[in-house]
Amino acid sequence: MPELFTVLPPADALGVLLGLMPLRVRAEAVFTADALDRVLAEPLTAPSSLPTFPRSTVDGYAVRAADTFGASESLPAYLSVVGQVSMGRASDVEIKPTRTVVVYTGGMIPPGADAVVMVERTQKLDATNIEVLRAVAPGENVIQVGEDVKAGESLLDPGHLLRPQDIGGLMALGITRVQVAARPRVAIVSTGDEVVPPEVEPGPGQVRDVNTYTVAGLVARAGGVPLPQGIIRDDFDALLSAARTGLDAADVLVISAGSSVSTRDLTADVVNRLGQPGVLVHGVSVKPGKPTILGICGGKPAIGLPGNPVSAMVVADLFLTPVLWRLQGVDTPPGRRRVTAKLAHNIASVPGREDYAPVKLAVRGGQLWADPVFGKSNLIYTLVKADGLVRVPPDSNGLHEGESVDVELF
Amino acid sequence: MPELFTVLPPADALGVLLGLMPLRVRAEAVFTADALDRVLAEPLTAPSSLPTFPRSTVDGYAVRAADTFGASESLPAYLSVVGQVSMGRASDVEIKPTRTVVVYTGGMIPPGADAVVMVERTQKLDATNIEVLRAVAPGENVIQVGEDVKAGESLLDPGHLLRPQDIGGLMALGITRVQVAARPRVAIVSTGDEVVPPEVEPGPGQVRDVNTYTVAGLVARAGGVPLPQGIIRDDFDALLSAARTGLDAADVLVISAGSSVSTRDLTADVVNRLGQPGVLVHGVSVKPGKPTILGICGGKPAIGLPGNPVSAMVVADLFLTPVLWRLQGVDTPPGRRRVTAKLAHNIASVPGREDYAPVKLAVRGGQLWADPVFGKSNLIYTLVKADGLVRVPPDSNGLHEGESVDVELF
Repeated sequence: MPELFTVLPPADALGVLLGLMPLRVRAEAVFTADALDRVLAEPLTAPSSLPTFPRSTVDGYAVRAADTFGASESLPAYLSVVGQVSMGRASDVEIKPTRTVVVYTGGMIPPGADAVVMVERTQKLDATNIEVLRAVAPGENVIQVGEDVKAGESLLDPGHLLRPQDIGGLMALGITRVQVAARPRVAIVSTGDEVVPPEVEPGPGQVRDVNTYTVAGLVARAGGVPLPQGIIRDDFDALLSAARTGLDAADVLVISAGSSVSTRDLTADVVNRLGQPGVLVHGVSVKPGKPTILGICGGKPAIGLPGNPVSAMVVADLFLTPVLWRLQGVDTPPGRRRVTAKLAHNIASVPGREDYAPVKLAVRGGQLWADPVFGKSNLIYTLVKADGLVRVPPDSNGLHEGESVDVELF
Repeated sequence: MPELFTVLPPADALGVLLGLMPLRVRAEAVFTADALDRVLAEPLTAPSSLPTFPRSTVDGYAVRAADTFGASESLPAYLSVVGQVSMGRASDVEIKPTRTVVVYTGGMIPPGADAVVMVERTQKLDATNIEVLRAVAPGENVIQVGEDVKAGESLLDPGHLLRPQDIGGLMALGITRVQVAARPRVAIVSTGDEVVPPEVEPGPGQVRDVNTYTVAGLVARAGGVPLPQGIIRDDFDALLSAARTGLDAADVLVISAGSSVSTRDLTADVVNRLGQPGVLVHGVSVKPGKPTILGICGGKPAIGLPGNPVSAMVVADLFLTPVLWRLQGVDTPPGRRRVTAKLAHNIASVPGREDYAPVKLAVRGGQLWADPVFGKSNLIYTLVKADGLVRVPPDSNGLHEGESVDVELF
């Protein structure tokens, strides 16, 4: 596979990468109770109907509906109360004509009965007799067997992100274990002779590592597990060795490269040595983030991020996030929250390039404004101060003050 | 504090509950690397400036800008290259007039220099001399000391939910430990003589526990820790004992009550016995969810949920979610993703009551449609099949087919 030397638009670059990724999803069994926010890796069907018995939806009297036909306040129906349905027990009293039993919400409708009269629509005559003040139709105030789910019905498909109600729904059917996509492991290699760990007081010319942590955060948010490999000096053999160790232990490799030309080439050389086909894309028409490297090494995606923190985050979100969801069997990653706001200042751009501009949201005069946070892409605090990103499409010269823009909260 | 016997609108009911909650946030120290999605519990200021030295934003030559004034392709400036700045080292060469040194992106600007000429704007004459083909202004291609953050500058306020970029930004300043709000612990008591654990095959009249798991999921999503207390039978002493044990170990108590009148009263009695002031709200004008109980017992919120699974989830989200964020010092809970869709069928409602209707999203004819998922509120699969909820405001008779509605993804 020859490297594509042209700078690709982000969507095309992502297409190249996803198009060559293996389709298989690595699955693992987990307790359903622990499966929140995991991606289902098997189709699930209902092993039984829900409910398995007809249930009352109200507190009242289980009746034969026919016994109440025509009943009204002025002409009530008279029924004799022959018992009570205990919660969690089968009701063994068969309801004969003009007979009824007390039933509570969720209780089982006894044989013979086909409806429930709400207690509010009745009046007690004495210890064993009631008046029914309103007719009920057959099935009224009753949940039928299988009304929630029928046995054999399809419940959820692979690729579904499990929500609280899904967990509850599976538990309701006794599905206490599920196959979910394994969390993709992401080896994160940070490079740079000038980079020191955050615990260290940097000497002159040194800076603390940022990208390991921002990337780890994005990995966790996309359901993955970050495997930080430490800081590697700008040396081909050292980088190759660290990248190989990382990739062996992981499903995806991320190299946060030095941003100088020489170290970018180092990353590309390393990716090409790690496995076939190697580098697929070298350069993407996005700002910030042009010097991006996308590759596949022996079936595993490898991403070379620009070294500066803002570009690294924007690029990781554009490429690493969808890769991680794809590895879990999700084709359309869950989107972020978006709000619409009025742009407070022009954002300049050039056609042919997709731009992402950080903005801060503020309410002024009852209107939500997006204030661009200007700053060089080396400044991590432009993202810390921002509430979200505004995308400037590739066919645009920029966005104008006063324009309505979509802000993706980031 | 007398119980408010009137049925309150949800917003008012929440106001009563939040208004009587203690304001203190329980804080704990965590490694910043582990603080993703935690809520900051201390104000943070920058202990030092970032960067601590002037840095180049490009690969090129560090120069005195004055030496390049007037330079152009036709009339270049000539400079002699007297060295190279090593990454991660202080540069000790002072740049004298007509001298320059090679500097890479992120490298330290040596003393004397005040700008960087990009390598693309230069031409090599020989081993030690270059032509500069374009003038640079003082400060061009340089990040100044403190340009990202100035020492003493306020970084983040208490109540801020830590994002990947925040973690990175704190690491950049060597802030490797932070005080965050402790995760609120939520004791979840499930009641009902008919309820069995999901692992158990239910007998006639029995159903599996759902609410423990849906509520646990909502607790986790709001940054809390669920402490499930098991299934308690409908008996005052048993429920009081389980609730007391749960509340002692937790910050919040949730009782998923049986939905019959008798067991609802049981929950209210228990909440009143657990501590002062006890029940504050008994009944909320929301559908599903009217038989909701809100109370405070000895400073800890206690919430009685309706027994049926859909009501329990809607109510837990309306009241428990904001309570959990408030306990972490967040006044405005992070909203859910919303989309706008056209309503495919009428949703009926009655004025004076706030309704939440589950809908499924579908694209038809290039238009996003919200298809109401009709079903009794006892059916958990109405929520499993739904993508979100549509709110019908209290002053409305319902929503009409074809109307544009906001769907909160749920």
